[in-house]
Amino acid sequence: MIKQLCIFGVGLIGGSLAMALRNAGKCEQVIGCSRNAEHLKQAQELGVIDEYTTDPVEAVRDADVIFLSVPLGAMQPILESIKDHIPEHAIITDGGSAKGCVKQAAINAFGDIPARFVLGHPIAGREKSGVSAAIDDLYQQRKVILTPVESVNGLNATDPEALATITKMWQSTGATVELLGVEEHDQILAATSHLPHILAFELVSTLSNSAVSNNVFNYAAGGFQDFTRIASSDPVMWRDICLENKDAILGMLGEFEDRLTTLKKHMVENNSDAILQSFGDAKAARDKAVIK
Amino acid sequence: MIKQLCIFGVGLIGGSLAMALRNAGKCEQVIGCSRNAEHLKQAQELGVIDEYTTDPVEAVRDADVIFLSVPLGAMQPILESIKDHIPEHAIITDGGSAKGCVKQAAINAFGDIPARFVLGHPIAGREKSGVSAAIDDLYQQRKVILTPVESVNGLNATDPEALATITKMWQSTGATVELLGVEEHDQILAATSHLPHILAFELVSTLSNSAVSNNVFNYAAGGFQDFTRIASSDPVMWRDICLENKDAILGMLGEFEDRLTTLKKHMVENNSDAILQSFGDAKAARDKAVIK
Repeated sequence: MIKQLCIFGVGLIGGSLAMALRNAGKCEQVIGCSRNAEHLKQAQELGVIDEYTTDPVEAVRDADVIFLSVPLGAMQPILESIKDHIPEHAIITDGGSAKGCVKQAAINAFGDIPARFVLGHPIAGREKSGVSAAIDDLYQQRKVILTPVESVNGLNATDPEALATITKMWQSTGATVELLGVEEHDQILAATSHLPHILAFELVSTLSNSAVSNNVFNYAAGGFQDFTRIASSDPVMWRDICLENKDAILGMLGEFEDRLTTLKKHMVENNSDAILQSFGDAKAARDKAVIK
Repeated sequence: MIKQLCIFGVGLIGGSLAMALRNAGKCEQVIGCSRNAEHLKQAQELGVIDEYTTDPVEAVRDADVIFLSVPLGAMQPILESIKDHIPEHAIITDGGSAKGCVKQAAINAFGDIPARFVLGHPIAGREKSGVSAAIDDLYQQRKVILTPVESVNGLNATDPEALATITKMWQSTGATVELLGVEEHDQILAATSHLPHILAFELVSTLSNSAVSNNVFNYAAGGFQDFTRIASSDPVMWRDICLENKDAILGMLGEFEDRLTTLKKHMVENNSDAILQSFGDAKAARDKAVIK
């Protein structure tokens, strides 16, 4: 049972966590904090949080768990503002889409990542954002990845008791918790999430800037709607992901661009067999991945 | 009322047309033709077609409407095999995903595109293919694009009566019929359909060939499933589209690659404002397109 949960950034991810924990009877009180009092008021009216404040110091004063669900670029300023005010027993955790940058933000703010800081990432989302999109079953049957750090050169390792508490917290929302290394997480998510989002944003941009037709979207079929759904995601969040997981994303983008170059070569050379082989392999991989 | 409809390639597209026309009481008899007698037998057992033959000449003997729903690369061989056996009153039409190449296939086979050949493309599909995926409401509230040709240098223009018949045929399936020029169609579809399919195939290939993780697909969220659904489409059909609408697709791929290059530059330069602007514009365009 968490007596007081403090959430920085009460949007889809933070709001859905609060709702799920309350539903499961695992949380007594939720305090919301952000720079925007209007958003916090809305979250309170929706019953997602009990109290709110725009003062980070006040927000964490009696917290047992502090959950950061803000865009990646906002992590370090928040950590700096609360670092001297966190109760000794409190656990910090986050929901950021990349983990190396949050670890670095903690090191920048604290000099080292605190032992009771559990880096985490719920693999869940909707194309809608904001607290009005929060739902109590967002994490049901989803994966949450936690990336505990090991002690290197005398630096802190993640406290096992803090890791166990955050693991149980996520499990009580209906999620499955898996552990990965920080770098491994960032590589995998660059591939499965960050690259697809970038392609969707850039595809829509290509079409809306193309000379092809003023009304090109009128001729888009159902597949197009599915394919571009993620281009309706929050631009600020995705801008930050591009900048904060840059190396892994640039690596995956490079691999993707190499494949496009190969395909173009096959097309120009009328290499029918090579194109068929490539598309057939992709279909097989996709069909297999989805059956899982 | 079509007395006898002859369908070449009784799969998702052709099978669904037969089912919709029969449901609407607009077709008396359906003859199926393909090289694969097993597929035809299955289509007959499913009640999609009445009779079948693997002989193209026999298939068209008493046809009123001949519908070609085969991969683009198979159009010309079929047209060559039936060209001297088409009843004078019969109308030929097709469901090919690109139109310039089908027009060219007709010119290659007949010396000119016959006046009673109505080029067409139903903007509908499912990631499943084959006659077992055919459904009678596939075309309900979908667009069907017809691309009649005008007389140039004494060549045939599309017969208005044939165009009217095929328009009514599609309308009776619940579809809305729109007219576009051949080239305009091919440009628009390269943007809205062909490019997204290629990106989906190549994204899945990138992931399944990446060194990132053996089980990278295990960490894919819902957005990824949506984004890659179209990578389960028929590889033969898409191989043919890549080859037969090559110029338009290479043009769109080039525009897309230019955007990726710009994004990478912004990422490397930490140009936060430019990335946010670009993603924000994409989200706005996508949200607007979908409301339509």
